Amino acid sequence: MDIKAYMQQVGVQARAASAAIARADSGLKNKALSAIADAIQGSRDSLILANQKDMQRGAENGLDAALLDRLELTPARIDAMLEGLHQVIALADPVGGMTDLEYRPSGIQVGKMRVPLGVIGIIYESRPNVTIEAASLCLKSGNAAILRGGSEAIESNQALAQCIRTGLEVAGLSEHTVQVITTTDRQAVGELITMSDYVDVVIPRGGKSLIERISKDAKVTVIKHLDGICHVYIDDDADMSKAVNVAINSKTHRYGTCNTMETLLVAQSVADKALPQLARAYGELNVELRGCAATKAILADVEDASEEDWSTEYLAPVLAIKVVADMNEAIGHINRYGSHHTDSIITENYTKARNFLRQVDSSSVMVNASTRFADGFEYGLGAEIGISTDKIHARGPVGLDGLTSQKWVVLGDGHIRH
Amino acid sequence: MDIKAYMQQVGVQARAASAAIARADSGLKNKALSAIADAIQGSRDSLILANQKDMQRGAENGLDAALLDRLELTPARIDAMLEGLHQVIALADPVGGMTDLEYRPSGIQVGKMRVPLGVIGIIYESRPNVTIEAASLCLKSGNAAILRGGSEAIESNQALAQCIRTGLEVAGLSEHTVQVITTTDRQAVGELITMSDYVDVVIPRGGKSLIERISKDAKVTVIKHLDGICHVYIDDDADMSKAVNVAINSKTHRYGTCNTMETLLVAQSVADKALPQLARAYGELNVELRGCAATKAILADVEDASEEDWSTEYLAPVLAIKVVADMNEAIGHINRYGSHHTDSIITENYTKARNFLRQVDSSSVMVNASTRFADGFEYGLGAEIGISTDKIHARGPVGLDGLTSQKWVVLGDGHIRH
Repeated sequence: MDIKAYMQQVGVQARAASAAIARADSGLKNKALSAIADAIQGSRDSLILANQKDMQRGAENGLDAALLDRLELTPARIDAMLEGLHQVIALADPVGGMTDLEYRPSGIQVGKMRVPLGVIGIIYESRPNVTIEAASLCLKSGNAAILRGGSEAIESNQALAQCIRTGLEVAGLSEHTVQVITTTDRQAVGELITMSDYVDVVIPRGGKSLIERISKDAKVTVIKHLDGICHVYIDDDADMSKAVNVAINSKTHRYGTCNTMETLLVAQSVADKALPQLARAYGELNVELRGCAATKAILADVEDASEEDWSTEYLAPVLAIKVVADMNEAIGHINRYGSHHTDSIITENYTKARNFLRQVDSSSVMVNASTRFADGFEYGLGAEIGISTDKIHARGPVGLDGLTSQKWVVLGDGHIRH
Repeated sequence: MDIKAYMQQVGVQARAASAAIARADSGLKNKALSAIADAIQGSRDSLILANQKDMQRGAENGLDAALLDRLELTPARIDAMLEGLHQVIALADPVGGMTDLEYRPSGIQVGKMRVPLGVIGIIYESRPNVTIEAASLCLKSGNAAILRGGSEAIESNQALAQCIRTGLEVAGLSEHTVQVITTTDRQAVGELITMSDYVDVVIPRGGKSLIERISKDAKVTVIKHLDGICHVYIDDDADMSKAVNVAINSKTHRYGTCNTMETLLVAQSVADKALPQLARAYGELNVELRGCAATKAILADVEDASEEDWSTEYLAPVLAIKVVADMNEAIGHINRYGSHHTDSIITENYTKARNFLRQVDSSSVMVNASTRFADGFEYGLGAEIGISTDKIHARGPVGLDGLTSQKWVVLGDGHIRH
């Protein structure tokens, strides 16, 4: 198989399909989404059969338990997929929305119209449900999609691709509106991220090393999420019960998510009071603590935090703790060691809350709230295709709006420029 | 001189300065802008002297008259620079602006805050006034700037850089907030567009070949403007007097600008009526016409338009004309041959106006208005750093908002996620 030629063909087909899906009205797009759901519902058995092939090959190839778990398609996960499709159907269609239409002194009316980006490439790993999630968000936002799932999920993804094609056909849309790459050859990724004539943006979802590699080689714009080194800073003026609740929730609500706190910063003046309570609570949940010298002076059985700990995303029941002189030191630490993802201050002080919001350079900055809230659903986006740690185009949780752009519209009555 | 080491140092300094300028309030930024204006006012003689050195060297090196004209700094052009600074002072400060702050079912309040991008690199050619324009827009939007002007303007730009440093110093801001590259070595550009640790976005201003080369090699996000192949489509239902006014204005108001019409599309049913009037008007202004076969059947002394003409940006008194069957053919032609810049329909038909607005994939889409309106000042942005023909991040005229991004803010009262 000539991978380059195959990918170029996929690109040409996607570009051609993107014009029609950009024009499609909400009714037609929802009809396709609904038909995809019907096709999945009608193919439950064959989807699970296809997935079993992936699972078996995965086990033979020695995939670890966590990976096999992510790969597995169960009846409950198929239900969740269908539920996700119905949620996307219920979302408002961003395309064509016009805003800020105002008269200018020249007499023309100028405003903006929200439009699809065009063709979106999505590169992801083992979880087959991403195929449906990505397809539905791209489709609803009027974009053509090229999906490249993990090689370990190829059978599952091809079975899902068949459901997508069926749904598109029912709605009278081109089967090239959503294309799932049929080859597991890694060269396909290299082609996808460099064919800028056919692809407008690439969204990689997966581990940091995958995303860094893709960003390095891409010629197409990448909306990327690197890592989540999130902080909670307990200020001198914190309400201590809020501080404890938020610090415990931010670390222990879930360990493996990008918006989980990895470093706790505590103002020196309240460290004596806050740390022992927190250590007890973390201890009950078996969270390993690593602290700076000042932390260790208060908490006896805490390991040393090394310089490396301040920039480590544990994704595990491990927490680094640092005592800081004041909010300015906390902000300095966050902007230096953090990953510009999500950081929260606990304070009752109005001026400090205001300054923290302004000065912390992260995609989500919070006051008196758990970092775990940094999420498309919690923010009211309805769904998210990922969380961007970039500043350009999209920052933080990326929903349907993040898959669109805005063009200018000008309405006149024969106006000419003088 | 070790160019790589020099540029890395410039980058490190810019990154360090960006934190302070991001935090600076409007008053402080306006104070710096005002002090820069004072410094320019106080250095008029030395600016003109420096510029004369550039002009003399340019003449010796055989620069053509158009280039020398762009390079020249006259008292009137210094006045225009000062006027531009005062306009930027008068603009509203976008930084810190909070929008869409809404309560979510969980009880947290979620909104967005506008923030600077960080460090912006600007690469431009001969006109020295771009130094002040770019510096003032970056400064007002809270970004640090690295400016790389044309080698032919090096003396003028260094003299202006001195005025900028003086202004920054008066306001107590770091001199590294705006750095003008002191070397004319082209390697500096290569370094600037690849040092993604220190530069967040690069905006090249200049010819298409320069911009294509920069985009190809850049590792940093590029906000780019390629070309302006703009269209006016005269529909079956056009008001003929509006059609003639807009078609003449779009082509002849200025020939060398990117928002000038390069191809005129005329619906077959009105070609007989429209083309002779237009040909007379263009004839009086010495605009050379090149037409398709149907155009030539109506207008006798028109040259053949070749396939190449449909994708040529003349920037000159030359116009390609094509007769099309209907609006759909016009839209197909625009989306295929245009540069996604600015396109206008002339029609009194409501449904066609609505469909044209939706289906034309350009950064500005107009109804009954001259393409010449596609401009930051005309759109009410107050100033523009350029016009983006990209879809990602910024599309069309880029003003202060285009130099910023939005982060999420979350306000809680000790909220945790359940």
